[in-house]
Amino acid sequence: MTDANRVLIFDTTLRDGEQSPGATMSHAEKLEIASLLDEMGVDIIEAGFPIASEGDFAAVSEIARAAQNATICGLARANFKDIDRCWEAVKHAKSPRIHTFIGTSPLHRQIPNLTQDEMADRIHETVTHARNLCDNVQWSPMDATRTEFDYLCRVIEIAIKAGATTINIPDTVGYTAPRESAELIRRLIAEIPGAGDVVFATHCHNDLGMATANSLAAVEAGARQVECTINGLGERAGNTALEEVVMAVKTRHDIMPFTTGVDTTKIMHISRRVATVSGFAVQPNKAIVGKNAFAHESGIHQDGMLKNPENFEIMRPEDVGLSATNLVMGKHSGRAALRSKLAELGYEMGDNQLKDVFVRFKELADRKKEVFDDDLVALMRDASTDPADEYLKVKFLRVVCGTQAPQSADITLTVAGEDQQATAQGDGPVDAAFNAVKAIYPHNARLQLYQVHAVTEGTDAQATVTVRMEEDGVLATGEAADTDTVVASAKAYVTALNRLRVRKEKLGGKDTREVSYKDAG
Amino acid sequence: MTDANRVLIFDTTLRDGEQSPGATMSHAEKLEIASLLDEMGVDIIEAGFPIASEGDFAAVSEIARAAQNATICGLARANFKDIDRCWEAVKHAKSPRIHTFIGTSPLHRQIPNLTQDEMADRIHETVTHARNLCDNVQWSPMDATRTEFDYLCRVIEIAIKAGATTINIPDTVGYTAPRESAELIRRLIAEIPGAGDVVFATHCHNDLGMATANSLAAVEAGARQVECTINGLGERAGNTALEEVVMAVKTRHDIMPFTTGVDTTKIMHISRRVATVSGFAVQPNKAIVGKNAFAHESGIHQDGMLKNPENFEIMRPEDVGLSATNLVMGKHSGRAALRSKLAELGYEMGDNQLKDVFVRFKELADRKKEVFDDDLVALMRDASTDPADEYLKVKFLRVVCGTQAPQSADITLTVAGEDQQATAQGDGPVDAAFNAVKAIYPHNARLQLYQVHAVTEGTDAQATVTVRMEEDGVLATGEAADTDTVVASAKAYVTALNRLRVRKEKLGGKDTREVSYKDAG
Repeated sequence: MTDANRVLIFDTTLRDGEQSPGATMSHAEKLEIASLLDEMGVDIIEAGFPIASEGDFAAVSEIARAAQNATICGLARANFKDIDRCWEAVKHAKSPRIHTFIGTSPLHRQIPNLTQDEMADRIHETVTHARNLCDNVQWSPMDATRTEFDYLCRVIEIAIKAGATTINIPDTVGYTAPRESAELIRRLIAEIPGAGDVVFATHCHNDLGMATANSLAAVEAGARQVECTINGLGERAGNTALEEVVMAVKTRHDIMPFTTGVDTTKIMHISRRVATVSGFAVQPNKAIVGKNAFAHESGIHQDGMLKNPENFEIMRPEDVGLSATNLVMGKHSGRAALRSKLAELGYEMGDNQLKDVFVRFKELADRKKEVFDDDLVALMRDASTDPADEYLKVKFLRVVCGTQAPQSADITLTVAGEDQQATAQGDGPVDAAFNAVKAIYPHNARLQLYQVHAVTEGTDAQATVTVRMEEDGVLATGEAADTDTVVASAKAYVTALNRLRVRKEKLGGKDTREVSYKDAG
Repeated sequence: MTDANRVLIFDTTLRDGEQSPGATMSHAEKLEIASLLDEMGVDIIEAGFPIASEGDFAAVSEIARAAQNATICGLARANFKDIDRCWEAVKHAKSPRIHTFIGTSPLHRQIPNLTQDEMADRIHETVTHARNLCDNVQWSPMDATRTEFDYLCRVIEIAIKAGATTINIPDTVGYTAPRESAELIRRLIAEIPGAGDVVFATHCHNDLGMATANSLAAVEAGARQVECTINGLGERAGNTALEEVVMAVKTRHDIMPFTTGVDTTKIMHISRRVATVSGFAVQPNKAIVGKNAFAHESGIHQDGMLKNPENFEIMRPEDVGLSATNLVMGKHSGRAALRSKLAELGYEMGDNQLKDVFVRFKELADRKKEVFDDDLVALMRDASTDPADEYLKVKFLRVVCGTQAPQSADITLTVAGEDQQATAQGDGPVDAAFNAVKAIYPHNARLQLYQVHAVTEGTDAQATVTVRMEEDGVLATGEAADTDTVVASAKAYVTALNRLRVRKEKLGGKDTREVSYKDAG
């Protein structure tokens, strides 16, 4: 890097983010998110943990092949088998990286039951092995913030000598504070021989609400890679939010003179996509990407700020890709207007696909007076071309519900192209509809998450329903939009079942989470 | 204060939080939240902006009368009328406080069109006036972080000399960073004569995701009051989250040796209540209060942490009032078990109220195999005793919906005790039900928010629906729970309409937001 103030953005939405309970994404969703990350200028995409499952391996391999600009990274524990498998997946990338780690704190040394010396040897061997496969090797001492400082220096020096090119310092439990985060990075860089030849990275968790401040403090102290996720997705309180770090250095360049390669106008679109595919909604008062982040009720207006920006940049809705004008479309809008609107929202498509979307847009415009940006995003979500989604389909649904139980549902599903009909009762219209599906397609999957969002305002709003199902440890999420909440629910449920079926076939019933951090030996 | 490291917690959920677009709370909800804040040991409750409306005035007055321990504060602009009105409301408290403010940055001086000297005179007069009414006066230079440092020192000194006992430094635009936040407080305390005799406060917004770190940095630099809200509720990206600040100093007492008076075990209950009454859901990966904040998928377990706490405190679910065992109740649970469970969840009630709740609990237990804590919280929400909620009631509802439009609803409402029936069609079951209500009770209110949450897991989960309606600038929120989403929707809609009716009568159609920060002259 020629610019000493250029900070690399390392996105781990697909690895640390996807690892959060219930955020499991489908193969197609992972590819889509990776492509959006690549387009927005993320420097390194951690695409998965290749040894964890066949699914993870396939996703990392395919993302590696498809990436245009980003370095593609895979995670591997400190053993040759993990590292080899990781290399097999990432080697297809124009710029591959192996990320290997081991827990170095006293607690984590107990798990593989290694002495300090034995662990040091293991680090030397595994980093050397990784470097023999790949020129770009990242090494992380997991739980670094709770590792004895002297031992931390010792093992980092070993990793650097063995060929690591990036040293990542994870605050695995999310308990650090900004001054402490800065101090640790500063001391490590000052005291470790060879520290100047590698990039130091910061990886923070938000358990105390300070991940962004901790990451930026580390950058001020010399770190030049920030590990983060879209929407701060991640286990517990999540990881550092990419959008907060990127917008903070952009907005406060006066006091944080750093740059990133991220095109901030792509933030809102990817934020919405990650929220949808993970089922992790963004709260309205979330910084940068919350629905209210740019909404002002009282007197401090964006306008006023623009008139008097003083010495810092102003954050404008359009900087994060939020259209200043939420152009309303209606039943008289033509195909060209729709195409241009969709392009603005980040959807480029061929004529055939547009034709299909236009038909569905017209149907929606007949039911809704005004079609907003968010309605179109919901429409696009529904335009899935994933063949997995074709096995079960809702053809007809009629539900009777209300204050007098039981509620009942009549459903016709096409199952592998053949119509089947069932009637069922339930506690509420959604339960009745789900029971009717189950009567046709018996399964033992458990409903883990059921979310309804009104896509836009008004009583004729579309509802988007997200359903997450779990069976034998395998998870799948489905979503669907309709002006009828019950119909959207049934469609989302069926989509989740379709995906669960494909995932279970692929995995042979094996839980991707069986192989995880738990066993970092 | 005898303890130099005791930090005062100033909660402004009911003022700055309630001011966020759409978070308007009913009178009864404000009283409930104030009572929970008082019980949890918040030092100062900013209860509202008394001159803004009759509703605000009534809420602040009643909260002042009811408070047991907390100081009750009201907001007032820099004029005698505001300050007098504020005093009229807060004077009923055992410990009242007047909080008066003026925008001191160049931008804000333009609005009332005052020179530096004229504004200085205004500050002297208004703080003197407030102090003549009340011994406890807080003064805020709004937009302090963008005010010229010398002028800021000058006006703070004037406010201190005029009798202000607390000086609050607001980062109104939420753009500060921790080092900058600390530096400002440190310099102000060092350079202003008399600074040692007053309490300095920090008031941060989360636009760049750093409000908690900024607040704690200010405390390290000498601030001894943190202004915050439950769930970080507030305009745009919200205010500093109370739960993050309180848990950060508790957990990292080793590096931040401060204490607060907050009983952290009350956090989860009030967080849920604020989320419900404001309609601002908390995202699953929100620090401390998110659903996943204490959920671990991979290897770093709370257990492991407990075995090796090193030099910092461990955050345990029970520290924030999340029961380690989410004891399941069922149809065989008796009244005593219900009473004890409800008490644990923070609901104390008399025999009559318990009797009523028990009947509803049994009905629910008949429909749901397992009744979880969250189901009981939803049940309690529904047990409103607000007479406003009695005008319109849903007696019967039957909806037919599905893939073949239009959907239709048959409804019987009791309107002021008299049954009325209607049938209507709509786009989806919810729209049809709402149209049927509208056929009986015509109105021009606009649906601003429609939210559905599954209360617990499983297909027989209860749904909680939140509906927010707006008419002529007046807002009202209703919520209801039922295993039938459509029934819950109709009930929540009717509750919102009942409350809107009462609010509009009280306000005579006047928007509470007409008088706001916009006009801080």
